[in-house]
Amino acid sequence: MATRTIFIEKGETRITRYVETGTRLLDLIQNEEIPLPATCGGTGRCGTCKVKIKESLPWNRTEEQVLTSGEKREGYHLACQILIDKGLHIEVPQLQEEKLQVMENSVERDFDFLPFLRKIYIPMQNPEVSDLHSIYDYLSDVEKLEFTLEQLRQVPVLIREKEGLTLTLDPNGKVIHLERGDTTDQLFGIAFDIGSTSVVGYLLDLNSGKELGVASRLNRQAQYGADVLSRISYAIEKKNGVKVLQKTVIEVMNEIISELTEKSEIDAKNILDCTIVGNSTMQHLLLGISPKSLGQAPHIPVIQQEFMLFARELDLNIPNALVRVLPNLGGFVGSDTVGVILATKMYEQEQLTLAVDIGTNGEMVLGTKDRLVACSSPAGPAFEGGQIRHGMRAIEGAIGNVWIETDLKYEVIGNTKPKGICGSGLVDLVAELLRIGIIDPSGRIKNKQEVPPIVSFFLKKRIIEKETGNEFIIVEPEKSATGEAITLTQQDIRELQLAKGAIYTGIQLLMNQLGIAPEQINQLYLAGGFGSYIDSYNAKRIGLIPQIDENKIKTVGNAAGYGAKLALLSKVEWQKGIQLASEIEHYNLSEVNGYERVFVESLDFPKTERWLK
Amino acid sequence: MATRTIFIEKGETRITRYVETGTRLLDLIQNEEIPLPATCGGTGRCGTCKVKIKESLPWNRTEEQVLTSGEKREGYHLACQILIDKGLHIEVPQLQEEKLQVMENSVERDFDFLPFLRKIYIPMQNPEVSDLHSIYDYLSDVEKLEFTLEQLRQVPVLIREKEGLTLTLDPNGKVIHLERGDTTDQLFGIAFDIGSTSVVGYLLDLNSGKELGVASRLNRQAQYGADVLSRISYAIEKKNGVKVLQKTVIEVMNEIISELTEKSEIDAKNILDCTIVGNSTMQHLLLGISPKSLGQAPHIPVIQQEFMLFARELDLNIPNALVRVLPNLGGFVGSDTVGVILATKMYEQEQLTLAVDIGTNGEMVLGTKDRLVACSSPAGPAFEGGQIRHGMRAIEGAIGNVWIETDLKYEVIGNTKPKGICGSGLVDLVAELLRIGIIDPSGRIKNKQEVPPIVSFFLKKRIIEKETGNEFIIVEPEKSATGEAITLTQQDIRELQLAKGAIYTGIQLLMNQLGIAPEQINQLYLAGGFGSYIDSYNAKRIGLIPQIDENKIKTVGNAAGYGAKLALLSKVEWQKGIQLASEIEHYNLSEVNGYERVFVESLDFPKTERWLK
Repeated sequence: MATRTIFIEKGETRITRYVETGTRLLDLIQNEEIPLPATCGGTGRCGTCKVKIKESLPWNRTEEQVLTSGEKREGYHLACQILIDKGLHIEVPQLQEEKLQVMENSVERDFDFLPFLRKIYIPMQNPEVSDLHSIYDYLSDVEKLEFTLEQLRQVPVLIREKEGLTLTLDPNGKVIHLERGDTTDQLFGIAFDIGSTSVVGYLLDLNSGKELGVASRLNRQAQYGADVLSRISYAIEKKNGVKVLQKTVIEVMNEIISELTEKSEIDAKNILDCTIVGNSTMQHLLLGISPKSLGQAPHIPVIQQEFMLFARELDLNIPNALVRVLPNLGGFVGSDTVGVILATKMYEQEQLTLAVDIGTNGEMVLGTKDRLVACSSPAGPAFEGGQIRHGMRAIEGAIGNVWIETDLKYEVIGNTKPKGICGSGLVDLVAELLRIGIIDPSGRIKNKQEVPPIVSFFLKKRIIEKETGNEFIIVEPEKSATGEAITLTQQDIRELQLAKGAIYTGIQLLMNQLGIAPEQINQLYLAGGFGSYIDSYNAKRIGLIPQIDENKIKTVGNAAGYGAKLALLSKVEWQKGIQLASEIEHYNLSEVNGYERVFVESLDFPKTERWLK
Repeated sequence: MATRTIFIEKGETRITRYVETGTRLLDLIQNEEIPLPATCGGTGRCGTCKVKIKESLPWNRTEEQVLTSGEKREGYHLACQILIDKGLHIEVPQLQEEKLQVMENSVERDFDFLPFLRKIYIPMQNPEVSDLHSIYDYLSDVEKLEFTLEQLRQVPVLIREKEGLTLTLDPNGKVIHLERGDTTDQLFGIAFDIGSTSVVGYLLDLNSGKELGVASRLNRQAQYGADVLSRISYAIEKKNGVKVLQKTVIEVMNEIISELTEKSEIDAKNILDCTIVGNSTMQHLLLGISPKSLGQAPHIPVIQQEFMLFARELDLNIPNALVRVLPNLGGFVGSDTVGVILATKMYEQEQLTLAVDIGTNGEMVLGTKDRLVACSSPAGPAFEGGQIRHGMRAIEGAIGNVWIETDLKYEVIGNTKPKGICGSGLVDLVAELLRIGIIDPSGRIKNKQEVPPIVSFFLKKRIIEKETGNEFIIVEPEKSATGEAITLTQQDIRELQLAKGAIYTGIQLLMNQLGIAPEQINQLYLAGGFGSYIDSYNAKRIGLIPQIDENKIKTVGNAAGYGAKLALLSKVEWQKGIQLASEIEHYNLSEVNGYERVFVESLDFPKTERWLK
């Protein structure tokens, strides 16, 4: 077979490979473990696998649609669209690490502060029976200590030190750590929430319960697939796929640990406990367990229960810590949902409550203290700005709010020139265009002559009629940060419809399970980053959430993360989480009869006249 | 400081080192981790650190005493006696691995055959909740399974295999092993008895309880010190001392595993359980725990309790096995004594019973079901032929029995020409020389004219009178395998006196603790290799054991090893061992008042006329 010479550079990295003709460029780059996003899994939809090619190459139809004229001028192509048939010189762009804003917890509640671990100081001993007997003598309430061999080897040295030693124990007598001197005043923990898109860590003082810091990073696994299904594909299909994804998220977690410890001036070796929530796929990948069975019907996780291990087994840079991964509810419904339920205490509510955690993977829980049902729904990255032509995360430069007066108005995060539009802006924009009649309930951007008379000249001017689907100009080139227009394409609306349809389908199916109508819901908790910034009125307008009175809707911020904190700070909450996971019913959307029908019905925007003021 | 060039060769190994003058040759060789015995710890007593030096060097007084003229002719020196002051070319002799004969278990008893581990076959599953749930469904009686991360990662693959999987569990639900297919008919275990001098392993079929093989090796730790105290010194004083000793015994155990698996055609990966007994020092060194606190008064072990771990943590070549180290009684009294007590069921005896396990480290237990007391005593290697001029182990070529008619008579193991004398032969010889009056109760070899008239001309001729102490010719040069005379030196008798005095001191102190006299003892169990081959009549004659009627003395072979087998074959026996270890009183000889006096009194041979027929 013929081979071609491919030269790849990325920053300082330069490699030359002799590659068989017909090889896809994206595969080549990913097999070399050169980070390159491909959030749609290499299907040409997301446009994130852009690379610069020095040679002149024609663009195919997919690339023509996704790349801007500016990008084409600079020689950009989509790596997923290039089948190698000649020697190429490729430049892979450097990823720019975005600074994520960490969401506040807008839910806080009382709990019993009862850390899982305890430290016991044992002064210098002169053992009379054995070294271990001298330790047992200090622990009247412990029947059996469980030492690792490594710990056992340290005992004879430490127990005879003038400063004594400090033992860290879990409730079952398992020795988590042994160290010189009295360190009982140094006991810290980290609670992690591992989302498909972002990872958040909270550093807590386990002596006082005080939060010492919070830090977050994008989950760089996204470069191997934006949503859980595409990551599962990557894990299964690529050589060392599971390992690569595991290593990636652990690197991200280690960066968070570094940031937290540096800012708080806490030594990472004094972090001894760590709780983790995340969806089932994130949990499997973190533990290095193949998510293959999750990826295909009937979507069965390998492990649904909680799991404890030492942080060093995962190469987390908290070398002395215990790691406690909260249990999943089942299927794709992960421990992040357990966290949301813990945080909101839904399991104690007398009246019907719905919690929706809107992220790349959406999760929803519905019910009362007597019965809770849950499911998850693959919304995809649209709400995070992914797979949207000018979409971006809710960071500086993103259009965060949109409303229509005579003309279109918007607010930009950070009050700069806009670079793109984020999820909350997109929901606002589509809701407003629906209200004014520029978009019809099927999601189509109307032609200028089709729009109602109420639509102003200024707004009509923004419609660009195209054969492949109209486009709507949000920001004119001269007003944008990039010098190019920021637009809403017909395809963007389709992506939003798929995303909101997925979320609503999940909610609808839970309502069907309990046989209830939206008006019976007494309380709606909106959780997650997007859920916290969204205009709930517009969310209802586009049919993302049920039509519920505004006063019954409460945003609860990163409730999953708050649940992880509760499990860190209280063994009662940890136990509660374990209990919840074994009790709550969960449904796999795709396994529920009528799923397809509900989903198709959910794609259109609500037709109800009451929205058309 | 001046340096000298030292060239060392041993077999294929050739190294050159530049060494400071004044360095001791033995230290240099041991620091290079070149195996060279030095069973006395480098004091010049044992003569085991012989090396050939190509250059001509004078012999010092110690070497003159220890080396034979033949050895001197060949250029042998004692590495412990050489302080380097010039360049040397050293040849370290290859160790010849002796083939050890394995002792029969002469004690066998009924027990409940209830293996600690069980295998459960789980046919291919189509999990409906999670992979682990499908496993739990097969284990109605297990509340909580404990998987390692590595095992968890195998679950999703194995559970979907057509052949199903087999799970090996301990009684607490800890997963020991996971494997493809139905392997329930393959469940094997090894019981190890790690002695200071030899290591024995028994391979057992844990489905049938049948013994499949037994193998033994010398404990090559002996090259770093013959007895536990000198090994403790080595462990503490040498760089990586603990590690070197640990590695050494594990190599020996791995050789035993190889021999057992090859002979029985069992795959080592199917050996899933392993019990271990040994004295406290052997246990610490096996686990890589510093025995420093054992080595100095009040001789406290780091761990006295039982300890379980995975065999791979010790690099034992039974990669899937659990290792269960039986508990020590305390101090130097190790789990080998627990094994002896298990084997003999002393804990159920109504009448006073004494068990003595005679080895390099001797252990003794005395009492009834109501109270058992135990202690250990450092006999040293004399009973194994160590530190005896022409001493050797009880292997082919060793004089194993001696008696006196008109002249000296002996039997050689394997019916060959004699190479030396082993422990049982030494006891016989000294007992007979005492009987006939050639040795007096103080242990002195009399001059020819001092011996009683009963002593024949042939026997008198064997006495060589020397100023430094007489010598007794056992075998004339022409009758020996080496062409040199085999003799008993005055120093040999001193070594035997120290050894038997140590053992008797232990027994005497236990009798004192219970306030009893020898005649009250109803049963005496003699355990251990030496204990099994010894003539008990002669043992009494030299005062090694109390004067007890012959019909009350029973040899029980390797009772410690049998105890390890019981703990392997029955979880009831394992539990019993744990219980015994927490109940039985143990004494450290050196901590008991009057120890020195009893020891000094025990050195002389019994004067009683009844022995002088």
